[in-house]
Amino acid sequence: MYRIMELKFSKHIDVRFSELDPMGVVWHGDYTLYFEDAREAFGKEYGLGYMTFFDNGFTAPLVELSMQYKKIIKYETPLRVDIIYRPTESAKIVFDYEIHDERDDSLIATAHSVQVFLDKDYQLVWENPEFYLEWKKRWNVFKD
Amino acid sequence: MYRIMELKFSKHIDVRFSELDPMGVVWHGDYTLYFEDAREAFGKEYGLGYMTFFDNGFTAPLVELSMQYKKIIKYETPLRVDIIYRPTESAKIVFDYEIHDERDDSLIATAHSVQVFLDKDYQLVWENPEFYLEWKKRWNVFKD
Amino acid sequence: MYRIMELKFSKHIDVRFSELDPMGVVWHGDYTLYFEDAREAFGKEYGLGYMTFFDNGFTAPLVELSMQYKKIIKYETPLRVDIIYRPTESAKIVFDYEIHDERDDSLIATAHSVQVFLDKDYQLVWENPEFYLEWKKRWNVFKD
Amino acid sequence: MYRIMELKFSKHIDVRFSELDPMGVVWHGDYTLYFEDAREAFGKEYGLGYMTFFDNGFTAPLVELSMQYKKIIKYETPLRVDIIYRPTESAKIVFDYEIHDERDDSLIATAHSVQVFLDKDYQLVWENPEFYLEWKKRWNVFKD
Repeated sequence: MYRIMELKFSKHIDVRFSELDPMGVVWHGDYTLYFEDAREAFGKEYGLGYMTFFDNGFTAPLVELSMQYKKIIKYETPLRVDIIYRPTESAKIVFDYEIHDERDDSLIATAHSVQVFLDKDYQLVWENPEFYLEWKKRWNVFKD
Repeated sequence: MYRIMELKFSKHIDVRFSELDPMGVVWHGDYTLYFEDAREAFGKEYGLGYMTFFDNGFTAPLVELSMQYKKIIKYETPLRVDIIYRPTESAKIVFDYEIHDERDDSLIATAHSVQVFLDKDYQLVWENPEFYLEWKKRWNVFKD
Repeated sequence: MYRIMELKFSKHIDVRFSELDPMGVVWHGDYTLYFEDAREAFGKEYGLGYMTFFDNGFTAPLVELSMQYKKIIKYETPLRVDIIYRPTESAKIVFDYEIHDERDDSLIATAHSVQVFLDKDYQLVWENPEFYLEWKKRWNVFKD
Repeated sequence: MYRIMELKFSKHIDVRFSELDPMGVVWHGDYTLYFEDAREAFGKEYGLGYMTFFDNGFTAPLVELSMQYKKIIKYETPLRVDIIYRPTESAKIVFDYEIHDERDDSLIATAHSVQVFLDKDYQLVWENPEFYLEWKKRWNVFKD
């Protein structure tokens, strides 16, 4: 028996004026930007970003993204997005997310995403790509 | 016993160049635009849009949005977004969505959204607002 | 002596909710979407679109875009974007634009854009590409 | 005779994946985000931001924005946006901008913007608002 590591990262986000809607709060669709920012920051930290996929001959598009909105986000709210890697046996990349108000740590939103791998011909890859298997082992998130 | 009506609407969407990502396909976050377009088109058709809420002293923010991506969307793909109202007793507005390629009717994505009502002080409204109860009766989607 | 044709096109635009800012009017940066919509519609009408460039081995990025904002745009304002091709000897594509309120034809904004051609190595092309020369002759906008 | 101060500020920007177009470079319309980021950063530094206007009963929409694109921006290019306040007697806010690649300081784009003041009824204000006059004096950018 062994413990699987929990990989996580936190990314600070500043709200942009252009993201505000007529109610003066962040438009719901723009949360996708924040989750992607967190995903890219995670990728840089742990070596699993957009360029990693590309350099290995793959893309890793989302096949699922669900978002739960708990509180509105007003302008000048300092945000922290926590992203947590969820280990999986399959050829998928699964993340959970939480957006917090940095001032009082209150929970603003949660999200969940699933990515798959496509090869250069845009075909779905069913087996874990070699580079991803190695990445899982390297970070001790290999689940079997 | 009686049948509840199924309210649905279909909205044509043209992909914008600005929505394409480096793979030349629509960036996943921009699907939120398409679902909102469908929601607004539904609102105009059935009298339940952003201005309806506003005129009655409410806003109706999303508290949940989940999206499942089945196929990529390339430039110049003619899209049809189907939006279906899901009757509910509670003070919520629930929709399901499907994006289809208009050329072969193939399914590109699905989604599900839940909206609640906030009053002018941004407080959550637990009971169905009067105007929404009337709307439900008018369209025979009253569930009890 | 001969007359140079004036090529123009008009494109209807519906404002999206996501384009509204906290004042309830279209955010200034989103006008770039409208001008691009007009440019793409022009491209389809006259055979000078993004895919035309691509198929001939070029891209045609903007090197200049200037926008003048005359009136705010509220939600549900029906817009008409007029785009006019400005003939030029050089290897450039020059357009002028006007956004009008369709209801009273009032002028909302104007714009001006200049595009150049890059080859597959992202190098600037100083001479008119052959396909563009032919396009100019075909539409009688050849200026010399 | 006296010298007018030159107020300027520099803002670091990270490119977002969502801002990339099919050529893998930042879409031209998204530069408007960068200039607005710089404007807001300037506003925080010198006390002339969106909230300053709002708190004094005004909004300050753009009436002109012109952008010149010199070089493409690839993913992971570290950007520095310089914004410079251009003193003017009239009731306008005028800025010049430069985007530089932080690695070699090369010039990527320039821009110029003009803002006017609207009162709470969206009417154009011809005279300098009192708070803006005081701001000009405070920073020694009063031109007469």
